Amino acid sequence: MSVALQIASDQSVGLGLGDERIFKDYNLVWVVSEHEVTIDRLPRFNEIVEIETEPISYNRYFCYREFRVYDQNGEKLVDIFSTFVLMDYDTRKVHDVPEDLIAPYESEKIRKILRGPKYKALGKATDTLYHVRYFDLDINGHVNNSRYLEWMYDVLDFDFLKAHTPKKINLKYVKEVQYGSDIESRLEQDGLITKHEIASNGHINAQAITQWEKI
Amino acid sequence: MSVALQIASDQSVGLGLGDERIFKDYNLVWVVSEHEVTIDRLPRFNEIVEIETEPISYNRYFCYREFRVYDQNGEKLVDIFSTFVLMDYDTRKVHDVPEDLIAPYESEKIRKILRGPKYKALGKATDTLYHVRYFDLDINGHVNNSRYLEWMYDVLDFDFLKAHTPKKINLKYVKEVQYGSDIESRLEQDGLITKHEIASNGHINAQAITQWEKI
Repeated sequence: MSVALQIASDQSVGLGLGDERIFKDYNLVWVVSEHEVTIDRLPRFNEIVEIETEPISYNRYFCYREFRVYDQNGEKLVDIFSTFVLMDYDTRKVHDVPEDLIAPYESEKIRKILRGPKYKALGKATDTLYHVRYFDLDINGHVNNSRYLEWMYDVLDFDFLKAHTPKKINLKYVKEVQYGSDIESRLEQDGLITKHEIASNGHINAQAITQWEKI
Repeated sequence: MSVALQIASDQSVGLGLGDERIFKDYNLVWVVSEHEVTIDRLPRFNEIVEIETEPISYNRYFCYREFRVYDQNGEKLVDIFSTFVLMDYDTRKVHDVPEDLIAPYESEKIRKILRGPKYKALGKATDTLYHVRYFDLDINGHVNNSRYLEWMYDVLDFDFLKAHTPKKINLKYVKEVQYGSDIESRLEQDGLITKHEIASNGHINAQAITQWEKI
């Protein structure tokens, strides 16, 4: 996921629309709001894979981008459909997508809002407490997106994790976690479906639904 | 560090002495016992570096290997001097270095035991508790070596970490941490020198001394 996002960032830089530029010119920052990850097979140790990314479409607030991971035979291993928004750096609010900013990506303008699954509030969840660590933070002092899944999956049973692999992951980022907070990782499991919430200070920060398969 | 160790592993595979082979033929596994890291400058984002590794010397129990990280101008950025031992997989005890196993590396046989600094037991340390997580484990179910430094440094003051960078790190692995344990990260700080212990179940698992510099 980190490498995939880096490739998207490289594409933006190649179009003259790197993070520094849109921050300087628009006071905006890109934020991932949702991922849908479909896994056929996870890459193996030392395997060489090819990752491609394509800005698919956008509407007033949301930009949709796909990532595809291929093995050396051209078989698709992983597919990631991601939703991005532009956030105003000062107000921390979602901003309209500026037409001149999005035009170079040549993605399709659509009216429809593409929604992920409904993440219902968890009822009878088990809660586990985690403390946000210094090395969970990225260069801007925000919790690195990759940590959420670690907190979510760590509460699963050891033997379950050893014997299963994720096939589909829906992950929604709701609200940034602040450094110094304790976060709760909540889990509701129904067989091969696990539902997750990360919460802190009475707010939900992230939600996920994962579909697992026996290895 | 992870990439450097991977390169050492690649070298062994290239010599026909990969981990699987020495496990199968000798029932032995390589274990890092100590690192001395000297940092001139840490690599920057997107910088291309070159890492070289050289098996330097060995005695009855210890094998010494150096890693050197260079920038594109050939300037050395980081130097890592590492001590490895071979552990018997069943007894978990250090094993004599077999001559036929070490010969292909063409490193010098020495009688001297090269020792790192004395790591004195910490007296008036502050203790912070961490729980070993599923994703702290490597494929063999052992805590990944890289996690120790994370636990050690996370207890440092936020503003200190933001304003300082390590110049020299001495790190000694004493005893494997078991999954499911809680570990204590102990810190004793004297200005720009920090001393660290990781302990669990009444045993010391790792010790470190770091010398920092203001950024």
